[in-house]
Amino acid sequence: MSFSGENYPGVKSPTKDSAGFRLNHTMLRIKDPEKSLAFYTHVLGMTVLRRLDFEEMQFSLYFLTPLAAEHSVPDNKSDRTVWTFSQTGILELTHNWGTEDQEGFSYHDGNAQPQGFGHICISVPDLDAAIAWFDANEVTYVKRPEDGKMRDVAFIKDVDGYWIEIVEAGRLGNLGD
Amino acid sequence: MSFSGENYPGVKSPTKDSAGFRLNHTMLRIKDPEKSLAFYTHVLGMTVLRRLDFEEMQFSLYFLTPLAAEHSVPDNKSDRTVWTFSQTGILELTHNWGTEDQEGFSYHDGNAQPQGFGHICISVPDLDAAIAWFDANEVTYVKRPEDGKMRDVAFIKDVDGYWIEIVEAGRLGNLGD
Repeated sequence: MSFSGENYPGVKSPTKDSAGFRLNHTMLRIKDPEKSLAFYTHVLGMTVLRRLDFEEMQFSLYFLTPLAAEHSVPDNKSDRTVWTFSQTGILELTHNWGTEDQEGFSYHDGNAQPQGFGHICISVPDLDAAIAWFDANEVTYVKRPEDGKMRDVAFIKDVDGYWIEIVEAGRLGNLGD
Repeated sequence: MSFSGENYPGVKSPTKDSAGFRLNHTMLRIKDPEKSLAFYTHVLGMTVLRRLDFEEMQFSLYFLTPLAAEHSVPDNKSDRTVWTFSQTGILELTHNWGTEDQEGFSYHDGNAQPQGFGHICISVPDLDAAIAWFDANEVTYVKRPEDGKMRDVAFIKDVDGYWIEIVEAGRLGNLGD
């Protein structure tokens, strides 16, 4: 029998109407694509699947995945766009043209007031190795694994200050009752 | 030859240090879990994989996926927690206890000022059927597919007002150059 989900007030069973729905991407606004792309491709190992430019509205979208090596990503641009929107675990970065040149401009991370969005999370195969890699790249931490109560969880910041949780799944089996 | 990524200023090739990294989840704070769980399980077809309660800090985390039916989700709680943190495309909802009873309290959606986080996106197999389903559930729209310039993209709101983009991958092949 397949797992049918934990039950809490409000929870209902999915119907056929939502069959095939998947969480495709999360969108964050970025100030400077050159800095963000360096961070997400080098430090977090993501691949740029597509950039979509909207000249009339003066913005570009970058779609990235950390899993390009595990998939057969289509080379043809149109096919690759369709592929991108059919996946799960994609990151979309929105660049409103010109923000990179605006002194003092920054986006809101959602954790300072007013709160809302909290973070994205990267699952890594080896937390210690990941921390050593982040240290070698002089990444900014919100919380190192050895700080605070949760010793197996780290939070780093991306170049805009958005929080990124870092976990190793195998270490989290004891979380919760 | 596998696709190696589009190249823009800042982009670097992933190294072995980031092999196996995956985008596990996106965390959003919610005011009232009963309402949010009804929305995400019924309207968006998600399954609650785990609730983790942190009594000392007075909050609970709910981890959901729309893809439970496609996977063999472990029944054992500890195994299921590890499984949850090794997936991609998970949604984490954070409930700080008591917000549901605070009159006038609401979280910030990231699209009003100050901007930052933009939205999550659900990829659906059939956009027209999804819109009919959302209409039947009286979902609030930011943009219906027929409004604005992008006719094949909709944006709905969840119960806290967070934006959720709705796309059908097969209709988006012509996006971009």
